[in-house]
Amino acid sequence: MRQRVGIVGFRGYSGAELVRILARHAGVEPVLLEHRHDSEERPAPRGRPGPSRLPCSAETVRAEGLRAVFLATPAEVSMELAPSMIEAGAVAIDLSGAFRLQTIQNHKRWYKEDHTQPGWLAEAVYGLPEFYRRRVPGAKLIANPGCYPTAANLAIRPLTESGIADRKAGIVCDAKSGVSGAGRKPTLKTSFCEVAGNFSCYSILDHRHVPEVLLHSGLDEAEFSFTAHLIPAGRGILETIYFRTDKVASAEELLAVYEKAYAGEPFVRLYDPGRVPDLHSVAHTNFCDIGVRFHPASGRGVVVSVIDNLVKGAAGQAIQNMNLALGFPETEALL
Amino acid sequence: MRQRVGIVGFRGYSGAELVRILARHAGVEPVLLEHRHDSEERPAPRGRPGPSRLPCSAETVRAEGLRAVFLATPAEVSMELAPSMIEAGAVAIDLSGAFRLQTIQNHKRWYKEDHTQPGWLAEAVYGLPEFYRRRVPGAKLIANPGCYPTAANLAIRPLTESGIADRKAGIVCDAKSGVSGAGRKPTLKTSFCEVAGNFSCYSILDHRHVPEVLLHSGLDEAEFSFTAHLIPAGRGILETIYFRTDKVASAEELLAVYEKAYAGEPFVRLYDPGRVPDLHSVAHTNFCDIGVRFHPASGRGVVVSVIDNLVKGAAGQAIQNMNLALGFPETEALL
Amino acid sequence: MRQRVGIVGFRGYSGAELVRILARHAGVEPVLLEHRHDSEERPAPRGRPGPSRLPCSAETVRAEGLRAVFLATPAEVSMELAPSMIEAGAVAIDLSGAFRLQTIQNHKRWYKEDHTQPGWLAEAVYGLPEFYRRRVPGAKLIANPGCYPTAANLAIRPLTESGIADRKAGIVCDAKSGVSGAGRKPTLKTSFCEVAGNFSCYSILDHRHVPEVLLHSGLDEAEFSFTAHLIPAGRGILETIYFRTDKVASAEELLAVYEKAYAGEPFVRLYDPGRVPDLHSVAHTNFCDIGVRFHPASGRGVVVSVIDNLVKGAAGQAIQNMNLALGFPETEALL
Amino acid sequence: MRQRVGIVGFRGYSGAELVRILARHAGVEPVLLEHRHDSEERPAPRGRPGPSRLPCSAETVRAEGLRAVFLATPAEVSMELAPSMIEAGAVAIDLSGAFRLQTIQNHKRWYKEDHTQPGWLAEAVYGLPEFYRRRVPGAKLIANPGCYPTAANLAIRPLTESGIADRKAGIVCDAKSGVSGAGRKPTLKTSFCEVAGNFSCYSILDHRHVPEVLLHSGLDEAEFSFTAHLIPAGRGILETIYFRTDKVASAEELLAVYEKAYAGEPFVRLYDPGRVPDLHSVAHTNFCDIGVRFHPASGRGVVVSVIDNLVKGAAGQAIQNMNLALGFPETEALL
Repeated sequence: MRQRVGIVGFRGYSGAELVRILARHAGVEPVLLEHRHDSEERPAPRGRPGPSRLPCSAETVRAEGLRAVFLATPAEVSMELAPSMIEAGAVAIDLSGAFRLQTIQNHKRWYKEDHTQPGWLAEAVYGLPEFYRRRVPGAKLIANPGCYPTAANLAIRPLTESGIADRKAGIVCDAKSGVSGAGRKPTLKTSFCEVAGNFSCYSILDHRHVPEVLLHSGLDEAEFSFTAHLIPAGRGILETIYFRTDKVASAEELLAVYEKAYAGEPFVRLYDPGRVPDLHSVAHTNFCDIGVRFHPASGRGVVVSVIDNLVKGAAGQAIQNMNLALGFPETEALL
Repeated sequence: MRQRVGIVGFRGYSGAELVRILARHAGVEPVLLEHRHDSEERPAPRGRPGPSRLPCSAETVRAEGLRAVFLATPAEVSMELAPSMIEAGAVAIDLSGAFRLQTIQNHKRWYKEDHTQPGWLAEAVYGLPEFYRRRVPGAKLIANPGCYPTAANLAIRPLTESGIADRKAGIVCDAKSGVSGAGRKPTLKTSFCEVAGNFSCYSILDHRHVPEVLLHSGLDEAEFSFTAHLIPAGRGILETIYFRTDKVASAEELLAVYEKAYAGEPFVRLYDPGRVPDLHSVAHTNFCDIGVRFHPASGRGVVVSVIDNLVKGAAGQAIQNMNLALGFPETEALL
Repeated sequence: MRQRVGIVGFRGYSGAELVRILARHAGVEPVLLEHRHDSEERPAPRGRPGPSRLPCSAETVRAEGLRAVFLATPAEVSMELAPSMIEAGAVAIDLSGAFRLQTIQNHKRWYKEDHTQPGWLAEAVYGLPEFYRRRVPGAKLIANPGCYPTAANLAIRPLTESGIADRKAGIVCDAKSGVSGAGRKPTLKTSFCEVAGNFSCYSILDHRHVPEVLLHSGLDEAEFSFTAHLIPAGRGILETIYFRTDKVASAEELLAVYEKAYAGEPFVRLYDPGRVPDLHSVAHTNFCDIGVRFHPASGRGVVVSVIDNLVKGAAGQAIQNMNLALGFPETEALL
Repeated sequence: MRQRVGIVGFRGYSGAELVRILARHAGVEPVLLEHRHDSEERPAPRGRPGPSRLPCSAETVRAEGLRAVFLATPAEVSMELAPSMIEAGAVAIDLSGAFRLQTIQNHKRWYKEDHTQPGWLAEAVYGLPEFYRRRVPGAKLIANPGCYPTAANLAIRPLTESGIADRKAGIVCDAKSGVSGAGRKPTLKTSFCEVAGNFSCYSILDHRHVPEVLLHSGLDEAEFSFTAHLIPAGRGILETIYFRTDKVASAEELLAVYEKAYAGEPFVRLYDPGRVPDLHSVAHTNFCDIGVRFHPASGRGVVVSVIDNLVKGAAGQAIQNMNLALGFPETEALL
């Protein structure tokens, strides 16, 4: 019998992606939890009922026996909902930034507001399975990683953990994202005429995804420069990472560091030296693809990391976490 | 000495286009009239002052001696502002639909609300210079045509006026527009992720630009089918017009009808039979380009009409009208 | 045990879509048949082998026991390959136009060249399952319908078959397609800078997909006007169809004609009167979505039909045909 | 009387831009020089003759008294044509990379082929007016700078010349360009379906524009990391430049370095600290817009530099050079 799981925020882009992916999941049946009607629905064909819809409440979680609830909601809504969902018996998988930063000080600095659930903030497990796979089963609250940090940490941590990166020289992460990363709420910055034929950067050196990279890569803020850019495309993140090293002598040696780090990982793929992935390489998939280039004479390296921001950067990774939490094969519905 | 003219709504797409084009005009100096702050401004380089800015009021019109005021504003704002601008001595050139439909009945039917200025509605001159050039000088209020009707009427009226179109068989106008036609206010329908990789139709058979086509082409509503579509592009309109006739025997004869209608017109360009323009043909120009195709055996004809919706469909045509109204060469700043 | 099927032309857009969809098929294992190397391959991650690759030959078909071979190839290549694939024991499913037009005269008129396989042309089954489902099992050669005709025929045939359309007034089909419909071979017309920010029409009244519509809708050429347009988007077809009738009195009655025609069809979906689908409604799916609008006073109707040109318009429909031909559930891998 | 100038390669994107801009130039009359017919022309309206067309030859230059000839041609064509154009009396303004790298060794390393005109290579003046304004008048051969190096050098040289950049820590330039930078010749990499919805990087650390940056910024290769990316947009370049310094204490101080470097420059515009331009800021203009951000505690700086690759990065700058070479006001036709 299929286990039931709830989705709050199913009208948004990440929420809709959860619905699409779960439709292929052999072990779960999604239930849409109506909470806020801020997002208009698209016209739907008639006579084709989708998943059932119920009010979002602790009562629904209990009555329906929901095993997990995905919160594809703004951080303030997630803070409000997560505790009651958990108390009603569900694992909460939060796609917002509400529970990612470990401490209230860190949260306040980057989100500019007090955290209303400090206990849960401390208890949340950061759901990047490639690093913390074993912590996920048993967790009551899973903080699904941010889209930029997912691509960044998977590319950077092998450099820092192996000790090859020259941290004093600093690491630069020039990050570019498709527009869906900004959510479905209409704004001038994400309106078609402002984005099409354009390319812009934002949150230079102070993006609130920076602390997630620092926490999991081990870098200090002074060692890490991050700038976000908006690609005139719907989905996908590409990050170009620059570093220096005198510890490897060739692209092959650099690549070997990644091969060791990700041997057996189902969702991290590597490319031959000099070849790099692009957004199309990972579109609509849960893969993080990584390619490298290296200039031996000067010790300069470049790593290119790509994900689909709505899949590995949001809904796909959330389902990967759900699979781990509920005991399904980790790749179910994701390959 | 340059004459001064005002622009209300200069932060919107049509308003910004007015500012850009007037910067090249040898005879006028634009003044930006601050009225509503609903639209955010783009970051601007420093030390590069643009046109002067003043509050939008009758007093400003008088004190500055503004000869004309462009209203690049929603219909309800135009209705409110036009009378006072005119009374203060300026020619009002309205880019909204407020004064286009001649009668309060027609206005109410298509705009779903009562007209608050019936006197001015009756007096407004419809500023499609190719048809009504002589009426513009001396007009106090110029209703600048809608974007879709400009492309439609320039393509259809030669067919109806010459009597070659089989009106009983009906004329179909399948119209497609870039997104800027919907204005700069953020909405879900015009947000990047909803439009990119998409194509949609709207206002099937009941678009409020239909009556403008009927009024100036002479067609009855039952004879004319019009559907609007949204192109995932910023600017430009392409209309594909289908009709039947037994009065011409070749594409050449069909084209001759247009050549006669537009001989000497500076802003209407024709193409050799079988060749048709596309959006790039007219981007950032005040041209309306027209091409035809004809199937002699069955008398089926297709006319393709393209304009830049922000130029010939809005700001450019408004400046063409201003040139006529203030006595400048009609093409000044527009070629 | 899975049955093996071959794909020729797997580097093109339709071929790649075949590979992607078949990866989810429970009953078949795809084999890539190397034939012509005109299309460059994308960089691929290492250590992730895909389907096996073999030379495209009758021998491979025999040795591997391929039950079906998809020809995602230009018409001239399909003509050359189909007979030998069939003789080697496979069902040939051709995605090109080579075997669609029934007679050599019709083929010559629209494709401007002699057909080299008149016998197979006559024997081929036109694989539009919604119309000819019963003919597919047992067929040796399946002509997979063109993308435009799939969307057009599904929308138009209910109008002609039910007798409600006023054929004398003519039916207009204004068709728009994403760029992938033109294939992967680089051309100026499909290069990014020519297409982005543009919209253009082509093959006005003489597109070679017209005869497919005539053959299966029952319309005469003089009754049907078709124009193709290029949408600045990768995939998707939207067709806006205009007709006149005095046989229905409301959109509901019009819609009832479609409900009757498509009751139980898994891949045709209808919308409530006045609501219409767009490209996003069907992206990456095998659905054809249809919506209608009707103006009772004048008897003018509009039907909007959308498909994903690479799925229902190519690879998806080909797999639907394969499912029917090889005895799998018709919807396998397609829902 | 207008002076006549020739354009070779007028069907390409840079060539077409030259034609468009020169149409507004008060002092010159362009002549189109037919040389190679590799690029198809767009359909043109009839009865609207453009500039005259003549064969591209030394004879034409002499007979028509062309004062300057723009070479908007591939490097090998420019090498072949430049000497004869100069000998026939014209100033050659070359938009290719043929004459930019000063020495045959440097040219061979980056362009992978021997230079066939070493004498002219040595004599060519690098036409970046903001740095070398005085060298342009009197030059017989002007090497118009590459698009990426124009944006890079204008942003980087103030950092190196003022001595504030920590060169040991290295400077990273993450560069992004619209597709027109790749020219009009159709390739798979620039075809619509490969670019739309995508974002990719190329020429990581070894782009042939790198040496132009080294030559004019004074950086060593080991100090400078450059990667190029393809934006799914037609035109525009945005470069994000990362550096470290302990010589300035605030964004204001950093900006002051740029203000000093570019005081009075007509085509370099600066933004208030923290504000940055995007592609739309400079689209269709000859401006290079620069914004900065600085993190005082760690001495990390980011500079954002944008140009329109077809204007300041190609045709506009070429006309700026022509204005200097022929004695016109430097900004003629460019503001």
